[in-house]
Amino acid sequence: MLSSRRLSYALRRAGATGARITFANYPALRPAIAHFSSSTSRHLPETANAPTSKATKYTTDAYPKLKRNPNFAQLTGEHVQYFKELLGEGSAVVDGVTTDATDDIEPFNRDWMKKYRGHTKLVLRPKTTGEVSKILQYCNSQKLAVVPQGGNTGLVGGSVPVFDEIVVNLSRMNNIRSFDENSGVLAVDAGVILEVADNYLAERKHIFPLDLGAKGSCQIGGNVATNAGGLRLLRYGSLHGNVLGIEAVLPDGTIMEDMSLLRKNNTGYDLKQLFIGGEGTIGIITGVSIICPQRPKATNVAFFGLESFEHVRKAFLEAKGQLSEILSAFELMDGQSQKIVRKVTGLKHPLEGSYPFYCLVETSASNGEHDNAKLEAFLEHVMGESIVADGVLAQDESQAQALWRWREGVTESLSHLGGTYKYDVSIPLAELYQLVDDTRDRLSKAGLIGNDDSFPVHEVVGYGHMGDSNLHLNVAVRQYSKEVEKAIEPWVYEWIAKRNGSISAEHGLGIAKKEYIGYSKNDSMVKLMQQLKKLYDPVSHSSSSPLAVMAGCDVSTNIAIIERDNEPI
Amino acid sequence: MLSSRRLSYALRRAGATGARITFANYPALRPAIAHFSSSTSRHLPETANAPTSKATKYTTDAYPKLKRNPNFAQLTGEHVQYFKELLGEGSAVVDGVTTDATDDIEPFNRDWMKKYRGHTKLVLRPKTTGEVSKILQYCNSQKLAVVPQGGNTGLVGGSVPVFDEIVVNLSRMNNIRSFDENSGVLAVDAGVILEVADNYLAERKHIFPLDLGAKGSCQIGGNVATNAGGLRLLRYGSLHGNVLGIEAVLPDGTIMEDMSLLRKNNTGYDLKQLFIGGEGTIGIITGVSIICPQRPKATNVAFFGLESFEHVRKAFLEAKGQLSEILSAFELMDGQSQKIVRKVTGLKHPLEGSYPFYCLVETSASNGEHDNAKLEAFLEHVMGESIVADGVLAQDESQAQALWRWREGVTESLSHLGGTYKYDVSIPLAELYQLVDDTRDRLSKAGLIGNDDSFPVHEVVGYGHMGDSNLHLNVAVRQYSKEVEKAIEPWVYEWIAKRNGSISAEHGLGIAKKEYIGYSKNDSMVKLMQQLKKLYDPVSHSSSSPLAVMAGCDVSTNIAIIERDNEPI
Repeated sequence: MLSSRRLSYALRRAGATGARITFANYPALRPAIAHFSSSTSRHLPETANAPTSKATKYTTDAYPKLKRNPNFAQLTGEHVQYFKELLGEGSAVVDGVTTDATDDIEPFNRDWMKKYRGHTKLVLRPKTTGEVSKILQYCNSQKLAVVPQGGNTGLVGGSVPVFDEIVVNLSRMNNIRSFDENSGVLAVDAGVILEVADNYLAERKHIFPLDLGAKGSCQIGGNVATNAGGLRLLRYGSLHGNVLGIEAVLPDGTIMEDMSLLRKNNTGYDLKQLFIGGEGTIGIITGVSIICPQRPKATNVAFFGLESFEHVRKAFLEAKGQLSEILSAFELMDGQSQKIVRKVTGLKHPLEGSYPFYCLVETSASNGEHDNAKLEAFLEHVMGESIVADGVLAQDESQAQALWRWREGVTESLSHLGGTYKYDVSIPLAELYQLVDDTRDRLSKAGLIGNDDSFPVHEVVGYGHMGDSNLHLNVAVRQYSKEVEKAIEPWVYEWIAKRNGSISAEHGLGIAKKEYIGYSKNDSMVKLMQQLKKLYDPVSHSSSSPLAVMAGCDVSTNIAIIERDNEPI
Repeated sequence: MLSSRRLSYALRRAGATGARITFANYPALRPAIAHFSSSTSRHLPETANAPTSKATKYTTDAYPKLKRNPNFAQLTGEHVQYFKELLGEGSAVVDGVTTDATDDIEPFNRDWMKKYRGHTKLVLRPKTTGEVSKILQYCNSQKLAVVPQGGNTGLVGGSVPVFDEIVVNLSRMNNIRSFDENSGVLAVDAGVILEVADNYLAERKHIFPLDLGAKGSCQIGGNVATNAGGLRLLRYGSLHGNVLGIEAVLPDGTIMEDMSLLRKNNTGYDLKQLFIGGEGTIGIITGVSIICPQRPKATNVAFFGLESFEHVRKAFLEAKGQLSEILSAFELMDGQSQKIVRKVTGLKHPLEGSYPFYCLVETSASNGEHDNAKLEAFLEHVMGESIVADGVLAQDESQAQALWRWREGVTESLSHLGGTYKYDVSIPLAELYQLVDDTRDRLSKAGLIGNDDSFPVHEVVGYGHMGDSNLHLNVAVRQYSKEVEKAIEPWVYEWIAKRNGSISAEHGLGIAKKEYIGYSKNDSMVKLMQQLKKLYDPVSHSSSSPLAVMAGCDVSTNIAIIERDNEPI
């Protein structure tokens, strides 16, 4: 590790106030923020910080154009009885169907962002793949619509019902099936919580090749169904490359057993890839096998303040060039995002000055001494060239975690201010942040943004995974309103499409973006997707007998994207 | 770099003869071997070392069970005229259709292994995606069967016709479309030769995330169509993770334009994944975009002799643990493979003693000094623990290349001895080499293997990508014979299936393994694949009007796998 003196020179030369280098007196973030990475036992949606259900509009009210497909059957007491017998006691949460049921079903009907709320009366919690298969087979025969639900941590309304779809909640399918320390191949049930898997791997000197803020709640099945990207895609690559096998149940109950534990297996079409990012619309993922790298022996985290986005871009290219194989994250946060975390948590920011941009750089590799030498050369360069204005370097793991919370805490801090319109987009690097400025200008010109309660918009915030050209544009509002929504959409999608960007980088389409796929995929691609949906779920496609609507674990009913003309739910 | 003295200690302590450390006097390998990585201008199949066409049996004679689907039309002079007008002069190679045509069509009918030979009379060489689209549209309307052909470097008979399918050769689609030095994203035509792309990237400080022995001839479209794995998958991951976009032409001529240049893009089903490893059976890949890492600044190559496979396994686990993020290849070669390279090339082997196993370890990263320190610690450990019996370390790039040729030259050296039955399989690491021993025993007990010409089998050889649990089992024969084939198949597939391995790790199924997919994929998976084939190529599926048979660039007519009962070609 670098000495304090050297760091002081290297990191604060362009700064102002002198000797503060380590985090010795740096307070821990409040539990409200920390829950994202600490609560491993909580499988159900977090409700502590959410308003009561009365505050969340029904999705059917917010999106009156969505029509329930009348071909789906209504749930009856007989159906509920069948499921209870099939799954045993404690496997079903029922409300509003039979008089004896008084379970609290609301947490399963709502998303944590308070934006989507469904009308389900039945939640099923199977424990085995066989049970999932029997559920779907029965739903298929009875014309009952279904929505799969993982950790319910998604941002696009994909994991909650819109109408009265039966929720198939995967939380009780939470066994780690196998792990091979030689090959690094892990096999799990879909409902295993990401952080539980990573802790299991940590004890065996390996690391899950995906990490994200919601790791304490999100489930691996949902991660795979949404092709989650997260914090270290830059280093470990995408799930399309790392997932080796998938077990999934198709709409008719067929079990697709493809749980390969092999690194290479070229035997016919790689069908499992369709389920990665397929948002659960063609089947419910019940098992995943994945290759996990060795856990790095040394990790460093630095946190910088920078004067402009161009400085951030330069810092990133330098990091890529100089830190190369040891760079494991390069995260962007704008000044607004940090102000909000500070306001919500009341914590002291790691940097004293105020900057329009901040970034977090993480290295992780096998030899701490080598890593430090590389990092030191990098820091000297970016400070010497005045690319970075100020910075701190974590001196131990708890400081590293504290720095990470200024990045990971943005999402949750925003949720404490009211509602948020969230856009998870990919744009070529040079123009990545321009979208935030342009959005702010646009809302300002429309008179919608301001500091007092008469303005619907509180702030426009940008942060994200710089290393993947992935921006999270967040419009924090005092309340959701059609006026704001209309000012942003579809303008924001047009802005992205003009730059050949993607309107959905890592969160999927869900309900939120179901209308807008055309901005990122051309007509012939959409047609090919419709064909596939029809192939795997033919009955829901037929107007005479639409059956189980498949929708994403952690992302839902985007069948409507695929079948835009049909609006089957 | 380590000093000679230190190396001498570290590397030769368990060896015998003393001071030979560097490769100063080590001769270059003969051009016959070197062509695999040096001939960048040759786009057509190499024929110099192959026997005349008379020596290669027609596939229809070798596999009399394959029946031409009578619903396909016969090629006429009118068809040829249409294509000539469509594509212009020089775009078609014709033989045996019209009297004025005397082109040499044989190189397009044969594979380089002298194992497969078709009857095509027409080769089309389009220059644009539009031309490919028009070709397929016309073939669709005229019921003409098609086989795509890339560099024709495959091992499973996938890139040559069986009957009179029209060959669509991608060689003239060889433009590099774009490269962004900031993001590392490269976009190319499918016919760009792998080594050409890598040389282009080298000038821009990047590296193609795939490398393989045939890089001087194989094409990127073919690499993607077969989901080629190669030498550095261990480091850079699979094409499923690295390919960002694909442009392909579907059987009916529809262009699927999905050439995203973005690292993240979650907007609907990731359809391009079906084309990666789809062996060209649902469309011809015409363009590929891919993320390319920065080129390592330092590379080291070490070459070891080891006393048993268990020693190789231990060395691999130590390399993985100690070299970690800088390990870029760990290749296995058995003693037999090295004897054959020595015999064919007449070269002196890098190691003086004779060992039952050899391995090649490569590191590549950004800081030579750090890499050397890690490598030194690793070498001291594996020598000190007697895991490795002897070894040498390349002192410069030409020595590194020379060492690599003892791995990359195995395939071609084998081809000089006669025929080879090749099995590209994935098996859990502990039992990886057992398959070679068991195969040798089996052939020995059957009296089929021996040193003189009365025995059909010359030798059983094993080598491959240890880091990916991927073995290349090669049975070198004096001539191909049904007796040998029957002794090996399906026994070898049963052996692999018992261990939950894959019968095709990185080369695809092609003609060679079309009957055997059931050993690696269960019935429901095969049924799902059949559904997909039918979706994308419905007409070839119908007995009344089967049209364009799609088959792999660099891999072919494995439609028969997908439609086993149909045998449409």
